[in-house]
Amino acid sequence: MTKKPSIPKGTRDFSPAEMIRRDFIFDTIKEVFKLYGYLPVETPAMETLSTLTGKCGEEGDKLLFKILNSGDYLSKLSSEEIQNTNLNKLTPRISEKGLRFDLTVPFARYVVQHKNDITFPFKRYQIQPVWRADRPQKGRYREFYQCDVDVIGSDSILNEVELVQIIDQIFSRMAINSVIKINNRKILSGIAEIIGEADKIVDITVTIDKLDRIGIEQINEELASKGIPLMAIAQLQPIIGLSGTTDEKLTQLKKILQNSKIGLEGIDEMEMIFDFINNLSIKTDVELDLTLARGLDYYTGVIIEVISKDYKIGSICGGGRYDDLAGVFGLPGVSGVGISFGADRIYDVLDHLDLFPKDTIATTKLMFVNFGRKEEKYCLPILAMIRGAGISSEIYPEPAKIKKQMIYANQKKISFVALIGENEINEGVITIKNMINGEQKKMTVEELIIELK
Amino acid sequence: MTKKPSIPKGTRDFSPAEMIRRDFIFDTIKEVFKLYGYLPVETPAMETLSTLTGKCGEEGDKLLFKILNSGDYLSKLSSEEIQNTNLNKLTPRISEKGLRFDLTVPFARYVVQHKNDITFPFKRYQIQPVWRADRPQKGRYREFYQCDVDVIGSDSILNEVELVQIIDQIFSRMAINSVIKINNRKILSGIAEIIGEADKIVDITVTIDKLDRIGIEQINEELASKGIPLMAIAQLQPIIGLSGTTDEKLTQLKKILQNSKIGLEGIDEMEMIFDFINNLSIKTDVELDLTLARGLDYYTGVIIEVISKDYKIGSICGGGRYDDLAGVFGLPGVSGVGISFGADRIYDVLDHLDLFPKDTIATTKLMFVNFGRKEEKYCLPILAMIRGAGISSEIYPEPAKIKKQMIYANQKKISFVALIGENEINEGVITIKNMINGEQKKMTVEELIIELK
Repeated sequence: MTKKPSIPKGTRDFSPAEMIRRDFIFDTIKEVFKLYGYLPVETPAMETLSTLTGKCGEEGDKLLFKILNSGDYLSKLSSEEIQNTNLNKLTPRISEKGLRFDLTVPFARYVVQHKNDITFPFKRYQIQPVWRADRPQKGRYREFYQCDVDVIGSDSILNEVELVQIIDQIFSRMAINSVIKINNRKILSGIAEIIGEADKIVDITVTIDKLDRIGIEQINEELASKGIPLMAIAQLQPIIGLSGTTDEKLTQLKKILQNSKIGLEGIDEMEMIFDFINNLSIKTDVELDLTLARGLDYYTGVIIEVISKDYKIGSICGGGRYDDLAGVFGLPGVSGVGISFGADRIYDVLDHLDLFPKDTIATTKLMFVNFGRKEEKYCLPILAMIRGAGISSEIYPEPAKIKKQMIYANQKKISFVALIGENEINEGVITIKNMINGEQKKMTVEELIIELK
Repeated sequence: MTKKPSIPKGTRDFSPAEMIRRDFIFDTIKEVFKLYGYLPVETPAMETLSTLTGKCGEEGDKLLFKILNSGDYLSKLSSEEIQNTNLNKLTPRISEKGLRFDLTVPFARYVVQHKNDITFPFKRYQIQPVWRADRPQKGRYREFYQCDVDVIGSDSILNEVELVQIIDQIFSRMAINSVIKINNRKILSGIAEIIGEADKIVDITVTIDKLDRIGIEQINEELASKGIPLMAIAQLQPIIGLSGTTDEKLTQLKKILQNSKIGLEGIDEMEMIFDFINNLSIKTDVELDLTLARGLDYYTGVIIEVISKDYKIGSICGGGRYDDLAGVFGLPGVSGVGISFGADRIYDVLDHLDLFPKDTIATTKLMFVNFGRKEEKYCLPILAMIRGAGISSEIYPEPAKIKKQMIYANQKKISFVALIGENEINEGVITIKNMINGEQKKMTVEELIIELK
C-alpha cells in the first residue's frame, strides 16, 4: 500500500497536544462529578438494534451506524430475500447491532437491565464516545465524546439545584464565564394551555426568542404568519413583555397562569430552585429564560442550557428532567434528571479564549542528554531516583548529535535538560539547562529534585 | 418494548464498583507511562477497511466488525451485483469501514499519516477499546481495552530497558508479584539457522517449553514426531539443557551460536539489557526464557512477556521490537518497540488475590440525611464548604424514611453520615455517624473537615 493512509470522514486523530488538553476537560468534569457523589458507568459501543431504533424518530434511525453481522451474513436468507432491494426489509436481516448515537438510550437500557442491583436514587456519570452518521461539517463530527451526569429515581428538585451547582463548579474551575439559562416545560405547557395552542408552543418560543433583535411588532407578525390566532397573540403580550428580576417575572407569570395547574406547578418548582440558589454562593449567572425550549421530546420539567459569555458557540452544556425514559424499556414511572457537557465546544471555548492552563502544554519535565554507553549507565539510576520523586523525565535513547537531541527537547516542550559528561561524573553533579531562559547551573541530584518539585 | 433489554454477546456493562477498580488500573498505568515521558494519542474507533484488512492474515480479517455504509448502501450496485452471493465481492461494495481490532495497526497508520508533525523518537501511549468478532468465551470478549506503549524511530536497546522498568513500576505499584520473561527473535533465528530448520522454530520452542513437565526424553520424542530430523534434535540438546544464571546461559549460547551472525547479535542485545537491568534496582524478576516465541509475525528483536507468580492466568503484559510495521503504510525502515497491558487479566489477578486498594471501594465519603425542606436549606451551604475542601459528599435528595436513607448509604459504602436536625441547627453542630463502627459524635463543620481530610 503506497497511497497515503487516511481516516473515515468526520472522524479525528487526537495528537498528544490535543489529548493533554482534552484530558484537562475530562479530568475537571470527572473530579466535580465525583465530588457530588456521582459514580462512573460504561456501556458497550455496540447495542442491539432493537435497543437503539425508534428512540429519536425516523431521522434518528438514519443516523445509526449499523454493523454487518459477522461470518456469512447472507447464509440465513432465501435467494428471494437477498434480491430484495427494500432496505427496510433487507437491513434487519444482515445487521443486528449498531453503534450508540448517545449515552441516554444505553443508560436507560442499563438501568432497566440492572434494576435489581442498583440502589436508587442512582447517581451516575458516563464519559464515552458516540457515533452519528451525520453529514460532517465544521464542528460536527461522526465520532465525539459525551459527558453525561444523571440522577434516576428521585423527583426532588434538589437534584436540579445540584446540577446547577455542578455546572457552576465545572465552568468556574475552567475559568469560563458562563450563563446558566433555565426554564420549565411545565410553564411552557401552562402558556400553551392558557392560549389554547398546545401544539404550537415550540413555534411560539422560537419566535419570542427573537425579541431583542426584531422588536415586538415583528414578533407579533411572525406569530400570525405561523398561524397563531390574533386572540392568542393578544394573550401572549404580557408574557412577551415580562420584565424585571427573576422573582418579579415569576410573580407576574403566576398571575398570567393562575388558571393552569401544570403552569403553576412549573412556577412553584422554579421558585424553589431560585430560593435554593440564592442561598448558595454560586458564581455563575443563573437566568430564567422563557424562550428556552430544547428540542428533545422527552423533557417534562426543568430544562437547562449553558452558554459561554465571551465566545458565542451555542450551548456548551444542556439537559433537563425526563419522566419516563426508562419506561421505554419496561420500567415506567421512574423519573430522571441529567445534563450533558459538550467536550468539543468546551475545547473550542478554552482554546479561543486562551484559557487552557499553561501546564497542560508541558509534558516531560526533564530530559537527560545522551552522551554514550558509559554515561547512559551512569544516568539511568539517577533518572530512576528522579522518577521516584514523581518527576516525569526521560533520557534521549541514543547518543545522537547534541543539536538533534536539543531539537527533540524543544519540540516536546521539555522544561529542563540535564547534561552529564565526564566532568559531571567526576564532580558528582549535574549540569541543568533551563530551556525557557537558557540559564545553566550545576547541582546535585537532591538539589535538582527540590528545584523541580 | 417489554422484552428484557440485553446487550450483544461478548460485550459488557461496567457498573460503578467495576469502573472504580478499572480506573485504578488505567490510572496506575497512565501515571507510570507519563513518568517515563510517553504522551497520549487517540485514534477513531472506525478505520477504513483498507487500513485494517490484510494486517493479520485471513484469520485476522474474519475478526473484523464491518460497518454498513450509511444511506442507501445498495444504490450504487447493479442488480447483478446485488444478486451476487459471493461475500468477497459484495462486502467491499456495501461496507467501507470497520472497527479497529488492535491499537498497533491504527497507530502505524497514525505515524505515517502525521509523520511531518511528529518529533522522532516518538514515545506514545494509547488506552482505548478494540473489537473482535471472536467466539465469546470465559475471559474473551468482543469489546475490550488495550493499553499500549511504544517508541517509534529509535533502534536503541535503551528503549527495551525502559519498558522493563515500566513493567516493574506498574506491577510493583499494583503489588502484583510478577516475572518478566524476555527472549530475542534473533536468538531463535540463530538456533534455527544452526540446526537448519528455520521454518520449524515455533514448533521447537513450543515443545522445549514443556521440559519441566515431561522431561528430556519425551521432549525429544515430540520433536521427532513433529518432523525434526535426528541430527537437528542432537544439535538442540545443549540448548535444551542450558542451565545456570542468565549470564551463564548466555555464555553457553554464545558458543553454540558462534557461527550465526544474527544469533550472536541477539545474544549481544540480551547481554546489554541484563547489564543495564542489574545496574538498576528492579524489584521484579527478569528471566531469559528461550522458550518464549510469541505468535505475532512482526516481531524481529527482543520479545517480552509478563506473568503473575501468584495467580496463573496467562500473560498479563507482552510485546517486543518490530522493524517495519510503519512500512506497511509507506514508511519503511522505521523501527519500533512496544508492550501492551491486558486490563481484563490484570483486573482478574487483582481481584482474585484481593489486591485492589481498599479505598477503591469507597465512593462518597459523607452523606447528609435529609430531614425536610428547612434542613435542606440549612445543609446545602455546609455541604458546599465540605466539597470545597475536596471531600466527596452528598445529601439524600428527599426526606425519605431514615431507614431507607441509611440503606442507601450502606449500599453505596459511604463511610460517614451527617445528621442535622432541629437540635443540631440550634447548637450549630453536626452529628456524625461512622458507618463502619457505628460511633456517633457531635462536631463543628471545621472539625468535620479536619476529621475527613
